[in-house]
Amino acid sequence: MSKVQLPFGMQDYLPDDCYNKTKAENAICGVYSSYGYKKVSTPALEYADLFTSGSMMSEKRLFKLTDTDGSLLAMRADVTMQICRMYVTSMTGIQRMYYALDSYEYLDDSNSARDREFAQTGVELLGDTGAEGELEVLAMAADALSASGLKNFTVELGHVGYFDGLAEDLGLSAENAARLKRLINKKDMLGVELFFRNSGLSDDSRESILSLTSLFGGKEILDKAEKLCAGEKSTAAIERLRYLLCKLDSMGLGKYFSIDLGMVSANNYYTGIVMKGLCEDIGVSILDGGRYDQLCSRWGRPTRAIGFAIGTRRLLAALRNQGTREKAPKADIAYAVTNCDEKTVRDTIVKLRKKNIVVQVFGGEDALVDYCKSKGISRALLFDGAPIELTISEKGGKI
Amino acid sequence: MSKVQLPFGMQDYLPDDCYNKTKAENAICGVYSSYGYKKVSTPALEYADLFTSGSMMSEKRLFKLTDTDGSLLAMRADVTMQICRMYVTSMTGIQRMYYALDSYEYLDDSNSARDREFAQTGVELLGDTGAEGELEVLAMAADALSASGLKNFTVELGHVGYFDGLAEDLGLSAENAARLKRLINKKDMLGVELFFRNSGLSDDSRESILSLTSLFGGKEILDKAEKLCAGEKSTAAIERLRYLLCKLDSMGLGKYFSIDLGMVSANNYYTGIVMKGLCEDIGVSILDGGRYDQLCSRWGRPTRAIGFAIGTRRLLAALRNQGTREKAPKADIAYAVTNCDEKTVRDTIVKLRKKNIVVQVFGGEDALVDYCKSKGISRALLFDGAPIELTISEKGGKI
Repeated sequence: MSKVQLPFGMQDYLPDDCYNKTKAENAICGVYSSYGYKKVSTPALEYADLFTSGSMMSEKRLFKLTDTDGSLLAMRADVTMQICRMYVTSMTGIQRMYYALDSYEYLDDSNSARDREFAQTGVELLGDTGAEGELEVLAMAADALSASGLKNFTVELGHVGYFDGLAEDLGLSAENAARLKRLINKKDMLGVELFFRNSGLSDDSRESILSLTSLFGGKEILDKAEKLCAGEKSTAAIERLRYLLCKLDSMGLGKYFSIDLGMVSANNYYTGIVMKGLCEDIGVSILDGGRYDQLCSRWGRPTRAIGFAIGTRRLLAALRNQGTREKAPKADIAYAVTNCDEKTVRDTIVKLRKKNIVVQVFGGEDALVDYCKSKGISRALLFDGAPIELTISEKGGKI
Repeated sequence: MSKVQLPFGMQDYLPDDCYNKTKAENAICGVYSSYGYKKVSTPALEYADLFTSGSMMSEKRLFKLTDTDGSLLAMRADVTMQICRMYVTSMTGIQRMYYALDSYEYLDDSNSARDREFAQTGVELLGDTGAEGELEVLAMAADALSASGLKNFTVELGHVGYFDGLAEDLGLSAENAARLKRLINKKDMLGVELFFRNSGLSDDSRESILSLTSLFGGKEILDKAEKLCAGEKSTAAIERLRYLLCKLDSMGLGKYFSIDLGMVSANNYYTGIVMKGLCEDIGVSILDGGRYDQLCSRWGRPTRAIGFAIGTRRLLAALRNQGTREKAPKADIAYAVTNCDEKTVRDTIVKLRKKNIVVQVFGGEDALVDYCKSKGISRALLFDGAPIELTISEKGGKI
């Protein structure tokens, strides 16, 4: 007999799950579309090199396989990189795109609660836009999460330039800066302490870096952060975040956003603002994104770009924890035929379906009403000479 | 620099392609849903064994990879088998399900025009339904193809039992029957001739088998076929097809269906009626399906079942050949801000978007009208103190 279980980190979506998934995805994609973004789709298999070149992603994280000609393929691990490839190959100018696709991460710990297949709905804004592009994308992030039905979420904003500027001011080598960045990103404070003990840097430098992890909260954090840095890069980062927060406030969206300067690199390829959507009803980020102005350069076409992705399973978990999980709707009408010509049956049903009424056949006439009651279908139609509506509940109406 | 090309048989869907794909899929899934079918989704990775056990599928056709524990995984090669696994694991009774998912076939000929990633929208009706279930699924096939906008299509019907009965009547061994079946399915007439020359069977037997390949057309074919067989199995197959055609005729759907008894096995797992959707505007089948009553038995739960899948790329190619390819719609309104508070801009836009009007920002005010003209956007909105609609074309209306 075949195995009935699935490889770990993989899942089916049964009707109720799939209904909630599709509903959330449609609501989110509806927002993207309303901003003039256009849907695109990428293949599930690429040359592995797309994801790994420039150390963007570790090969260990990929589901790899060998193609007929010996070349190394990988399953879709990051849609943003694929869309950059697509843009460079086929597009120019400012392009607004969105997608609803599954990505794959090869994890080797079967005890991990993490998914190895994860659905995402995301956007990419490619082309020459600056702060206005960021505002557009941030407003869209808030609108998309709201449209999904999620409550009590916050989109935290950071900026890669703030840390980079601090590291430059301290005269850290690129290698040491990267090491420190990883430690801070993991909030590994012991690691950061050890880093400084061995670095020979002054106590002041140590303080300014350590304080990064506490630089989260409202606008006031930006004033605090400004005092900790002098360099151009860090100051510019703070100015950008201040501008964005101020504009978002004026738009009435301020309540959805906060600052976290300790979020130094949600992803290797971010070069400017970074964002993370959080919700107290789930312990992981629901949305991740940022500016990635260097990614397209890999193909010799430097292009400014911003984007984010919403993790569908994480969003659904948060929605479920908030009590907004629904059941897949039942058919509106079930029908059975005792005695009626096929043409009448067909014409009646086609007419109902054209009115967006879901009409399902029931294969036996005796127990039609019982069937409807047991399945929660509110209306029953018996074709006996002509269509006759049977009484099930007060919900039933005229056909 | 990273490669910009894709592995062969893989493709991007750029905005126009993706728009046509989504539109067709939504139209088709809307039909499935209107019949009371519920959407489900399966993972892209399974244990390879799911697809290969019982010789259902050759391992050569799978994209295979090794999991952390050494077990062999395969990319989704057949959704029907996955849905049977899902049904046996989690469901009972009659279940109506549909899906829109990509499947993968490992082809080793990079010169082949075939896709190695192919999107399908399909249905599965599991549980104890007989001819009525088949009628439901056949009507849904015709309705789904019509809803996609496809013209001039035919769903050809065959029955696995007709050939099986003939082979039994001739006293062919299971092995020889399978060999012959493959030859007929490939319409390899030379192969069939050689088969008979070496078989020692009578000329009459040879004739009845050879005639299979010409048994296609309308109802009259069934009368012709009946004369060629005597056995119970073949006769029952013809009776079933006659019943279905007659009912479909009465429903006004007869024009969409025809008979092809030479279609002996579209797929290894079919056990009863088989169907194939064809259209003169493309040389391959757009829809494939049939009854598969043995598949769930693999997990010890014999369950009657019928289903079909529509190949999205093939359907889109046929639609394109029929001239019904569209461009992704432009935004309805583009706007720019010269001088206006953020709240007014935001409120105006939110109000428009709530009316399903697609509103896209434009990042410079001078050339807004030129921009709209060049992009085919019919309305331009300038926020200068208040929102002002600029004249672009006669299409523009009140905001």
